[in-house]
Amino acid sequence: MTTLPSSPAALRVGVIGTGAMGGGVVQSLVRAGIATSARDIRVEAQARAVGHGAAGCASPAELARASDVVIVLVVDAEQVETVLFGPEGVASGDARGRVVLVSSTVDPLYVRDLAPRLAAAGLALLDAPVSGGPAKAAAGTMTMMVSGEDGALTRARGILDLIAGRVFVLGTRAGDASTFKIVNNLLAGANLAAGAEALALAQASGLDLERVRDVVNASSGGSWIFADRIPRALQNDLTPRAAVKLLAKDVAIAAALAERLGLDAPFSKLARGAFSAAVAAGHAEDDDAVLMRLAVNAAPRFAER
Amino acid sequence: MTTLPSSPAALRVGVIGTGAMGGGVVQSLVRAGIATSARDIRVEAQARAVGHGAAGCASPAELARASDVVIVLVVDAEQVETVLFGPEGVASGDARGRVVLVSSTVDPLYVRDLAPRLAAAGLALLDAPVSGGPAKAAAGTMTMMVSGEDGALTRARGILDLIAGRVFVLGTRAGDASTFKIVNNLLAGANLAAGAEALALAQASGLDLERVRDVVNASSGGSWIFADRIPRALQNDLTPRAAVKLLAKDVAIAAALAERLGLDAPFSKLARGAFSAAVAAGHAEDDDAVLMRLAVNAAPRFAER
Repeated sequence: MTTLPSSPAALRVGVIGTGAMGGGVVQSLVRAGIATSARDIRVEAQARAVGHGAAGCASPAELARASDVVIVLVVDAEQVETVLFGPEGVASGDARGRVVLVSSTVDPLYVRDLAPRLAAAGLALLDAPVSGGPAKAAAGTMTMMVSGEDGALTRARGILDLIAGRVFVLGTRAGDASTFKIVNNLLAGANLAAGAEALALAQASGLDLERVRDVVNASSGGSWIFADRIPRALQNDLTPRAAVKLLAKDVAIAAALAERLGLDAPFSKLARGAFSAAVAAGHAEDDDAVLMRLAVNAAPRFAER
Repeated sequence: MTTLPSSPAALRVGVIGTGAMGGGVVQSLVRAGIATSARDIRVEAQARAVGHGAAGCASPAELARASDVVIVLVVDAEQVETVLFGPEGVASGDARGRVVLVSSTVDPLYVRDLAPRLAAAGLALLDAPVSGGPAKAAAGTMTMMVSGEDGALTRARGILDLIAGRVFVLGTRAGDASTFKIVNNLLAGANLAAGAEALALAQASGLDLERVRDVVNASSGGSWIFADRIPRALQNDLTPRAAVKLLAKDVAIAAALAERLGLDAPFSKLARGAFSAAVAAGHAEDDDAVLMRLAVNAAPRFAER
């Protein structure tokens, strides 16, 4: 196994998937003086990362050879599978000894099973989902949840602290950090969908929705996601800072995980249904505040008696 | 109509229902030097209010005659009906000109219909639900939502500012403030029940629930009620600071309101079901953090593969 340098500044880092989140991570790394490589199958996304100061790579395999730590921030498990084990994937090249951070939010059981598969290629896995959105990714202040073997964590820790404002170290089992993320995102999705229903009830009752915002944000019904999304919903600003498809994926993972565990999970199913409906209505790429907007628009019209 | 004194200190206030919340309101009023009367059908509750410095009354009618502003803080609409319109109720005595605050959380349509019924007895209604719990009620820092005719609000305003830290003035229609409260409490109930499910998913996955608390409270899945209740759930401390029966009532009101308005409201129904199940299991008087405890206890046992 390669011995990695102990100072984070001496580590070379590669980021695969340089979209909204990965692109921000590239910026944080370059700003910290880290030699950074970038790979994205979308030419324009990779070009933006190169514009921020990263070296562009022709494949995940090339990126892995040029890096000590590889951070995977693609969209879903299918893409993770491709960049790790596909042709010209990370595991295909001569990249033994690297630490691979899977930071995409994917099914925890999939991540757990990645550990032995990567180990067979001489690679160490850290299960390392992130949250906070693109602005925090670019500022280096996102939150990271991480689980995996102590050795891998020790080697990559300096890098984690450069790209995340807060790092939750959540044990040694790969998959656990992803489960924490899924549990959190289930709540984000359920609280948002319930918030949409509450706004519809307010609208049908003839209430001023800006006052509903004020009251809920100051009261026991408040939630992080309600406070964050309702301004966009009220202004009908659906520029995607958090596209519907992301939480749609996560609440579906939560519902499937519950099913596999034999757990009755009606809120997960209901949240999955609410997000699926928004996707089916053509809003996959809109900001997920659209759930609130759609609910308000569909509410029965208030008629004063 | 009686002309009320303009300084709050010159107003006499009566509180009907001196339990957890009403008892706290009595303390705030007495501390502010207000001449305060108290009435509770439970001898021990009224005795506690008298111990705090209120004058005990033999009936709501007697209390109303001795007061300029009457605050009703009984448990539910049935009790509101009794203390206002029952034998020896507020409306039965010679109490014309009083302002009646209905601060119990009840069906908004019931409150709306109270306005003309009270007006027929010469009484002005303020729809004035409160939130924040017993400790804030006693400290005078609870939140109040109020709607009703401007005249009544002007007359009672000084008193509101003595018993509430924050007053949301929500228009002139009686019933609207109660709708705001129900919309908020629907969210509190749904967020709590979803939080219980998320904890069950974490438990079945073998996660440390104290870390789940830390991660969720710092992330996008956080909510006011999750943060407030989870310490009690983790410590299995079910001393009722917020009894299950209260949100059980409120989410049922939300579901019924949605139904009357022709609004599909699956989260309201699901929350109603979750709270009803806890009530049916004998937990009506326990703290509603019991929903989290019950979900964790019922979760499938984690088995590492």
